[in-house]
Amino acid sequence: MHRYRSHTCAALTVQEVGQTVRLAGWVNRIRDHGGLLFIDLRDHYGLTQCVIDPDSPAFAVAETLRAEWVVRIDGEVKLRTPETVNPNLPTGSVEIFIREIEVLGAAKELPLPVFGEPDYPEDVRLRYRFIDLRRETLHSNIVKRTKIIAAMRREMNDAGFAEYSTPILTASSPEGARDFLVPSRIHPGKFFALPQAPQQYKQLLMVAGFDRYFQIAPCFRDEDPRADRLPGEFYQLDLEMSFVTQEDVWNTMTPVITSIFEEFAEGRPVTKEWPRIPYDTAIRKYGSDKPDLRNPIEMQAVTEHFAGSGFKVFANLIASDPKTEVWAIPARTGGSRAFCDRMNAWAQGQGQPGLGYIFWRKEGDVLEGAGPIAKNIGPERTEAIRNQLGLGDGDAAFFVAGDPVKFYKFAGEARTRAGTELGLVDTERFELCWIVDFPFYEWSEEEKKLDFAHNPFSMPQGGLDALQNEDPLKIKAYQYDAVCNGFEIASGSIRNQEPETMVAAFEKVGLSREDVEERFGGLYRAFQYGAPPHGGAAFGIDRIVMLICGAENLREITLFPMNQQAEDLLMGAPSVASPKQLRELHLRLNVKE
Amino acid sequence: MHRYRSHTCAALTVQEVGQTVRLAGWVNRIRDHGGLLFIDLRDHYGLTQCVIDPDSPAFAVAETLRAEWVVRIDGEVKLRTPETVNPNLPTGSVEIFIREIEVLGAAKELPLPVFGEPDYPEDVRLRYRFIDLRRETLHSNIVKRTKIIAAMRREMNDAGFAEYSTPILTASSPEGARDFLVPSRIHPGKFFALPQAPQQYKQLLMVAGFDRYFQIAPCFRDEDPRADRLPGEFYQLDLEMSFVTQEDVWNTMTPVITSIFEEFAEGRPVTKEWPRIPYDTAIRKYGSDKPDLRNPIEMQAVTEHFAGSGFKVFANLIASDPKTEVWAIPARTGGSRAFCDRMNAWAQGQGQPGLGYIFWRKEGDVLEGAGPIAKNIGPERTEAIRNQLGLGDGDAAFFVAGDPVKFYKFAGEARTRAGTELGLVDTERFELCWIVDFPFYEWSEEEKKLDFAHNPFSMPQGGLDALQNEDPLKIKAYQYDAVCNGFEIASGSIRNQEPETMVAAFEKVGLSREDVEERFGGLYRAFQYGAPPHGGAAFGIDRIVMLICGAENLREITLFPMNQQAEDLLMGAPSVASPKQLRELHLRLNVKE
Repeated sequence: MHRYRSHTCAALTVQEVGQTVRLAGWVNRIRDHGGLLFIDLRDHYGLTQCVIDPDSPAFAVAETLRAEWVVRIDGEVKLRTPETVNPNLPTGSVEIFIREIEVLGAAKELPLPVFGEPDYPEDVRLRYRFIDLRRETLHSNIVKRTKIIAAMRREMNDAGFAEYSTPILTASSPEGARDFLVPSRIHPGKFFALPQAPQQYKQLLMVAGFDRYFQIAPCFRDEDPRADRLPGEFYQLDLEMSFVTQEDVWNTMTPVITSIFEEFAEGRPVTKEWPRIPYDTAIRKYGSDKPDLRNPIEMQAVTEHFAGSGFKVFANLIASDPKTEVWAIPARTGGSRAFCDRMNAWAQGQGQPGLGYIFWRKEGDVLEGAGPIAKNIGPERTEAIRNQLGLGDGDAAFFVAGDPVKFYKFAGEARTRAGTELGLVDTERFELCWIVDFPFYEWSEEEKKLDFAHNPFSMPQGGLDALQNEDPLKIKAYQYDAVCNGFEIASGSIRNQEPETMVAAFEKVGLSREDVEERFGGLYRAFQYGAPPHGGAAFGIDRIVMLICGAENLREITLFPMNQQAEDLLMGAPSVASPKQLRELHLRLNVKE
Repeated sequence: MHRYRSHTCAALTVQEVGQTVRLAGWVNRIRDHGGLLFIDLRDHYGLTQCVIDPDSPAFAVAETLRAEWVVRIDGEVKLRTPETVNPNLPTGSVEIFIREIEVLGAAKELPLPVFGEPDYPEDVRLRYRFIDLRRETLHSNIVKRTKIIAAMRREMNDAGFAEYSTPILTASSPEGARDFLVPSRIHPGKFFALPQAPQQYKQLLMVAGFDRYFQIAPCFRDEDPRADRLPGEFYQLDLEMSFVTQEDVWNTMTPVITSIFEEFAEGRPVTKEWPRIPYDTAIRKYGSDKPDLRNPIEMQAVTEHFAGSGFKVFANLIASDPKTEVWAIPARTGGSRAFCDRMNAWAQGQGQPGLGYIFWRKEGDVLEGAGPIAKNIGPERTEAIRNQLGLGDGDAAFFVAGDPVKFYKFAGEARTRAGTELGLVDTERFELCWIVDFPFYEWSEEEKKLDFAHNPFSMPQGGLDALQNEDPLKIKAYQYDAVCNGFEIASGSIRNQEPETMVAAFEKVGLSREDVEERFGGLYRAFQYGAPPHGGAAFGIDRIVMLICGAENLREITLFPMNQQAEDLLMGAPSVASPKQLRELHLRLNVKE
């Protein structure tokens, strides 16, 4: 028999009844039932119940065992009595009658319990992560994470992609966040940077004549800790293709990502044909470029119905500023004064003056609009609005007015709020879409200049000609996001691979040809030696895993995360360097006392 | 038709004759055959010949094309005339008759040529790596590398392993080489380290209850550049298993690695049953713990035949020092004075006094040993040596005497030299083996103390008892290497997961319990909370790819390598940091002018 085990703790069924077996694992729980000791033995694969009675020669050892000790157990597989069968456990029909126990690894008193997964302070969980990870939910999330990533690799390989590893010790990257730097020992005073993303390398790969690159890529950004991003490193499913249009990227990646969601959705529906929603439409319909399409509410402009109406607040706005629009947030089943007032109060809590509404109810046979707005604009306009929105008895609509650029985010939040509060959002599904035609530039109020709205390496729609002749704020980019349930899960673009178009694009944000050469020399130079049209995307692996696992905290799907203070409590990092190390790296500390 | 291509440059065969197709790619070569222009178009997948005659409206564009321009070509697929068919090319039976050409990316004058792959200075190749990578051999090596790594992942998944990513920003690791450090912005004066290997994390994973971990793991060592190691980062196939003996690791990994070699060996034989050779045996038979088993020469001790013999140099050594041994290097077909003298001259070139030998030849019907040693020890001892070594007419044997610890490396080199010179080594095969039972400690002459011979985290054979009661230099470790064709391709061990055994092991090299706690606290602490027996290995991916590709330089199998001065010439790394960056990282430079 094997030194440690003949079976895993998930393997034994009625098939093995009568056999003498050997298991090894952790003591998950010990129960004393009138002298009999029940030991649940746990390993990576599952759980098996083991029993020992006081007559057994191994009983003396059994009595010393504590939770989380690692033991080897020899014994005979027996059928459980019918009333003790556990149908929720694959091994629930059998138990091991213990003959021999060997302690392979004892445990001191535990700093946090494993069984039952009670809440525990995060610093203890992170410091003793090797115990924390034994907990059922976290263990299962991490296993699922490995399976999701393996499925990504399989799907990408099946789609004709190959995985290339790009350098981790590299130069500062232009993604815009702060780099982690690595001092060079051999070149005094110089530094490598960890990649914020393999953006430049994957584009260089295309210029180098490769095609269909992907990578499960570690990315590094030295940002201040945020709730939705762990300090330090994160992973992307990064990909790039040559000789493609943006449709090719969508057509390639939609089935890949759909398959992955379907594989792990446990029956929850997944969008097969992802809608492709222009950015401007997404903003108008959903008030967000990351719309949660599980929420059926679609906003509509109803400006004309308020122009010249008796609702003077809106009518005056419309009359005085041509940018003014009125958007309606239709809310089916929201047609009660109580709900409408709750929404109004919520809006005031968000710093808004309020949230105007109409709700519809039947008075006898007559369907009429109620609330102050309906009173002010009169039944005809109220009915026109109802018709446009397709609402009926028991429904409501909320209204936001002003310059859409300024209010669309709030309108989007109101849409989310209404959908959630009314239970219109089916949380047991995955709604995926592409958001396309992002603006190329945006106006930076802070710096009073144009800035790139997203990826500066995207190709502007219309190319060089558009850059030279169009209003820059009207230019769209071949730039797209993938969105799932209100979260951005990917971003991508067709790249600007024409050196002159690249220079023209950067000039608009105030960077000269020399700046481009200096900052992005690797790419700029490469594009002058035969660059193919190319494009791609990067999917956020952590976010996809969180969505699939239903986890709300990155630490619940990450193996060895840092804490919010960017410390690895388990390994004790960061830590001080020795004087010798600092000398070798040509550094002195500059720490204020 | 698609914007850029209807087919790749490897797709067209006689099946498509008559079709109008669209291709895109790089101009590999242009030939002018009496007015007709032949353009070989190349993409990631292959090569297609395109033809244009001066009457074509696209001819004016065709004439402007130069090597490495990126173009789209539309045209009709035609059969080549029989005498122009190229049977070495999948597309060699057809050509495209060009109707239209669009330049997608022009190229300036090339700093290095692609077609024909002429030798070129390495700094140019690295600075323009995106052009260099288009060369046929390098492109094919990199593609093979991606396939080998994909095969590793597939085989490991099939063997029940899951891939876990361990942190890259972590604490200093105990592997012994120099760490790359990453200054922390948030914690002034503190540093992260990049992992030299995920050794501690993979062991923590086992303690955390996972099983069968693997990772294609990036590893970082700040070592001075060496011919056989690129500066910076390299990749390991890293793995770890719980509840295993070393036999389990060997039995699991032998078929995995054999399959990978077989898949890419292109018919070259691969060892299926890897011999397991104890370290001491390897040293005695091959003079190396990385024996090239393609070399059939096995050394033998022949001390007794020289003891008290007339060959006084050896006889006196044997008489004066009980450590003295004489090893014979049998060399079939090496039995000529010319060859033996060449070996002797080579040995002197290595700083040795010489290399004694006997060679056997037939004088009439009599087989006799020739050379000075044979003369000195006489025919009886000469014949006994011949019998022991199983040699005959036309063979030779070389002899090395002294303390084996001091001469075994030279003896191993002589074995390699003789095998290579005599053509005994079949270079068209992959000979794999496990070297096992490595010594746990070695004596450091430099520091005059015991040191770990290999991995300090290995379990000593005999455990705590051996550490307390045996001569430490006699203790073996559950430590093993995998070797292919004379190169170490893996190293691994069963780990020492018992805290008290760990402390005892470190005490012998002069480290106290407090040192262990401080330096390896992560592991030491973890082992006190229920640690399973576990073990694993790490395979060197770069070395395996080099062996399979037959490449002799790491830069021929690496995508974006640094140069020997640890610089990335393409991206310009390392580079200076801005004063703001240094301030944020709480650093000042300490650079001598």
